[in-house]
Amino acid sequence: MLKVPDHQVAGHHARDGKLGPLIDDSGRFYKPLQGDERGSKEVAFYTSFSSNARIPDHIRRFFPIFYGTQLLEASDGSGLYPHLVLQDVVSGRHNPCIIDVKIGSRTWYLQASEDYIQRSLKKDRETTTLSLGFRISGLQIYDSKESGFWRPEKKLVLGFTADDVRVVLRKFVSSNSPTDSDPELDCSFAAAVYGGFTGILAQLLELKAWFEDQTIFHFFSCSILIMYDKEAILKGMSSGAEIKLIDFAHVVEGEGVIDHNFLGGLCSLIKMISEMLTSPDENPNITCLQDYEKNHSYLENGTTE
Amino acid sequence: MLKVPDHQVAGHHARDGKLGPLIDDSGRFYKPLQGDERGSKEVAFYTSFSSNARIPDHIRRFFPIFYGTQLLEASDGSGLYPHLVLQDVVSGRHNPCIIDVKIGSRTWYLQASEDYIQRSLKKDRETTTLSLGFRISGLQIYDSKESGFWRPEKKLVLGFTADDVRVVLRKFVSSNSPTDSDPELDCSFAAAVYGGFTGILAQLLELKAWFEDQTIFHFFSCSILIMYDKEAILKGMSSGAEIKLIDFAHVVEGEGVIDHNFLGGLCSLIKMISEMLTSPDENPNITCLQDYEKNHSYLENGTTE
Repeated sequence: MLKVPDHQVAGHHARDGKLGPLIDDSGRFYKPLQGDERGSKEVAFYTSFSSNARIPDHIRRFFPIFYGTQLLEASDGSGLYPHLVLQDVVSGRHNPCIIDVKIGSRTWYLQASEDYIQRSLKKDRETTTLSLGFRISGLQIYDSKESGFWRPEKKLVLGFTADDVRVVLRKFVSSNSPTDSDPELDCSFAAAVYGGFTGILAQLLELKAWFEDQTIFHFFSCSILIMYDKEAILKGMSSGAEIKLIDFAHVVEGEGVIDHNFLGGLCSLIKMISEMLTSPDENPNITCLQDYEKNHSYLENGTTE
Repeated sequence: MLKVPDHQVAGHHARDGKLGPLIDDSGRFYKPLQGDERGSKEVAFYTSFSSNARIPDHIRRFFPIFYGTQLLEASDGSGLYPHLVLQDVVSGRHNPCIIDVKIGSRTWYLQASEDYIQRSLKKDRETTTLSLGFRISGLQIYDSKESGFWRPEKKLVLGFTADDVRVVLRKFVSSNSPTDSDPELDCSFAAAVYGGFTGILAQLLELKAWFEDQTIFHFFSCSILIMYDKEAILKGMSSGAEIKLIDFAHVVEGEGVIDHNFLGGLCSLIKMISEMLTSPDENPNITCLQDYEKNHSYLENGTTE
């Protein structure tokens, strides 16, 4: 029984008769192949990556498991359509908080079409991609059973400044309601989510060590999903903090060179997150998101299954 | 007594009645302020950097000492002209081998003019800046008392592919004559120059650790000079291997973000150099520079002072 994913924070959505990914109850995620060459490039990446013996297991766990491709009824009702069959990386999570961070100060590459390069470059200049080396593509922060999730709309997210990104990364690990106008974010989950031997920062540092060395792939326009379960922490359980890399339609051969574009952006994200652990009481320009919120915030109900 | 530098491998030269840097016998380097805002920006950088107490000494040593500015007779005979007074970073060296590596996959920045951005972007795409995260801007390799230096001309250097760069970085530490068409580069000075506790790689790693943390400056279009003395090694003395950062006309405020552009390029350079230490016998595409050399190589006499 296929259904629309509850916790997809960026990308094309299978809603309103549109083509988008589907999930099932067994923990699989069915992503329709993008119509142009992106679809075949993503299949090629997953095929190459999943069979590459040089990828160590402690790195492989950061990628969705690949189960091949399959013809399925498309979500837009257009009939049978080829889908990537992947691990549903949020399967089993209950009301997860998720941020999708697109890594790199450049989302384009020389092998792309000039039209793609110019459109990507424009978006890189208009977002924090250029200044921070990454941009937030989407997010959801669980608030409460009553209020559900804070899911800022795409236009708002793509308008984030560097200071907005800092605020969102603090808001992500604060007990404050994400729509609360109180400027004092408590960052009370920062240690449980970002910190510790198995937290987000430790995982990002493991990934960094690999990117300092690997020259197999260059990951353009690829995202790191950062996830955790707020309710689990409140119940005294593990935060379930985890990163996953997704979106490989723009991966190219490394040709013996490290992916300095991804690595630079990753180091920038690491620095920003590590500052939240070392100085969680600093709230730089905390008011910068307030106006956005007044105008744009909307809540959706959390899942209750 | 001012004179034209013997060992300047890139940038404007004070030859043929042109405006360029001068040196004296006391170890100072006089760089004319570039006419547009670049000159004042470079003065602003040196002033800010030299007085910034947050720069640790083990990093400060990688930068030329700044002695202020001074009005001097310009090398083009146009009369008094303002010059930066800096440490001459090759002073005291005898026939040094030098490579100028411009770091970063992007030499432009949002605060620059659109015209500058477009020109820089074009050059970044045409050179290895985009693919490797750095490009060689100039070099000289000492051959022998008879043959002097190999100093490939600017046009050849800017045409280097990624493979050419690998070859040049091997050639730089080989005992082979730099113009020799023998494809077997011996890399016999690799350990003495790139390796060891005080070698180039160790210095680059120190610089990297700082760039992973510092959020004060972003260094666009800045170069790392890599230098050593081949004759000293042959005499059983220290290689004098040393890096220096130069050219700060495009440094901008870091605004609390790491310089992910410089850091990414630096990591790419580090990876390439470390591979030469771990597998010095590999000569990837070693023939790729042969044709260039046949057509372009020229030698100049080494200094004999």
